[in-house]
Amino acid sequence: MTKVVQTIAELKAFVRDTKQAGNTIGLVPTMGALHEGHLTLAAQARNENDVVVMSVFVNPKQFGPNEDFDTYPRDLEGDTKLAASVGVDVVFAPSTEEMYPTDGGITIRAGRAAEILCGASRPGHFDGVLQVVAKLFHLVEPTRAYFGQKDAQQVALIETMVRDYNFPLEICTVPIVREADGLAKSSRNVYLTAEERQQAVGLYNGLKFAKEAILSGKPMGIAMMAARDQIARETGGEIDYFECLSYPDLKSIDGQTTDVLLAGAVYIGKTRLIDNMIFNLKENN
Amino acid sequence: MTKVVQTIAELKAFVRDTKQAGNTIGLVPTMGALHEGHLTLAAQARNENDVVVMSVFVNPKQFGPNEDFDTYPRDLEGDTKLAASVGVDVVFAPSTEEMYPTDGGITIRAGRAAEILCGASRPGHFDGVLQVVAKLFHLVEPTRAYFGQKDAQQVALIETMVRDYNFPLEICTVPIVREADGLAKSSRNVYLTAEERQQAVGLYNGLKFAKEAILSGKPMGIAMMAARDQIARETGGEIDYFECLSYPDLKSIDGQTTDVLLAGAVYIGKTRLIDNMIFNLKENN
Repeated sequence: MTKVVQTIAELKAFVRDTKQAGNTIGLVPTMGALHEGHLTLAAQARNENDVVVMSVFVNPKQFGPNEDFDTYPRDLEGDTKLAASVGVDVVFAPSTEEMYPTDGGITIRAGRAAEILCGASRPGHFDGVLQVVAKLFHLVEPTRAYFGQKDAQQVALIETMVRDYNFPLEICTVPIVREADGLAKSSRNVYLTAEERQQAVGLYNGLKFAKEAILSGKPMGIAMMAARDQIARETGGEIDYFECLSYPDLKSIDGQTTDVLLAGAVYIGKTRLIDNMIFNLKENN
Repeated sequence: MTKVVQTIAELKAFVRDTKQAGNTIGLVPTMGALHEGHLTLAAQARNENDVVVMSVFVNPKQFGPNEDFDTYPRDLEGDTKLAASVGVDVVFAPSTEEMYPTDGGITIRAGRAAEILCGASRPGHFDGVLQVVAKLFHLVEPTRAYFGQKDAQQVALIETMVRDYNFPLEICTVPIVREADGLAKSSRNVYLTAEERQQAVGLYNGLKFAKEAILSGKPMGIAMMAARDQIARETGGEIDYFECLSYPDLKSIDGQTTDVLLAGAVYIGKTRLIDNMIFNLKENN
């Protein structure tokens, strides 16, 4: 039986009782409008914890002034049914006033790693993400929190915050779910025409090509340039970014780098698609 | 028996065991060089919690480039003896490398309320304070954390951070300890000549005068101007600031304000002294 909790007081009472009983808590933060990706996160949380809390909160702080905060889909009843179907215990769905009743002017700045990749076109977005995630971590006190690797930059920044600020919890990343041909699943794939859908897989193919070239020892610059050309050719789209950076710090790769994020964003027609791969540079050595 | 812990791994193991046993934790954050004020905090923590952790860490992030980080007094052995005398269970004394091994570029900005009062002459100071306090809160997971009211702006900012970011703990403020004539105790009082020591109490007298005038219904502007004149006359010093602001938000007072901070800083000779009072505007109504 999934319980919907809308106040912080009720949530904190639930968390206190759960902790006192010695139970672990898995947190799945969402903005609602649940799709297969969210349910995959919740199912993994269900497997690994005694209690699963899913937050459903459209966070105004992570939307820019010209973004779609007002029109973002909201369907708490539908979301609760989906959450129940994967065994979520509590849906925490606070109002904006409940989450942000006061503002003393203290902010979290995501910094350099938020100004690149997807952040380049969304100034302030990741500051707002880190703010709400920090609040949710303090409210739910989870043992583990679940995020999709699809939003790799978001996960990298959250992992960095947890590491550098010593949050007492574990970040669990759930791999990208793909279509049969490799295209990353996305709510936005429905916007693609039949032809664009065929082309779209070119982003995945380019990432795969670059990863294999890099692991086989090709110089990074040459591998990336060849892969970028392949993506442009196969998708027929406009590349927003295509980069290989250290993970989770998102810095240029040097001799010390082990884990890397290979990430791309492409406009195919009017639809912007993102995809990525995270791997260890030494994994085949 | 007071235990000195220097690594995060050992601290976290202690915290985990303490929590699992259902015990409460009181945290007393310090930069060492313990004096009577710190011991008063620790004694109150001892009264109110099962376990008391005192951190002793000279935090480089809260010192400006021209401040005294390198020469700040360090005496872990002496501090540990003093901590033991008031029943502290664990002294957590990490190295700088243990506290800041990585820097992914995510910062906390204390904002507007850090740019006034003592913050006006120490840009970035309170950002560094909030960073280390957030880390300590995540590492120690205290039930209660103890701060002296003497540093009222610091307490106000920490209370604001705890409130706005939903940290799961209680901030306990310990009143200012005063000499017989009312002068706030401070390590810096020893710098005063005999004559300056006599004059120094003028800051306390001015705060008391302003508080009584405000509570008796005098217009704020008139009360503050008269008190400022009195402080200048009695101390013979140079007033750095003398202000009455809402507490803990540190904004201008308006019709909604209930709790206020009355705070002053005065240079008496070369010595900068601070003092303050926090009270409810309606307390005599």
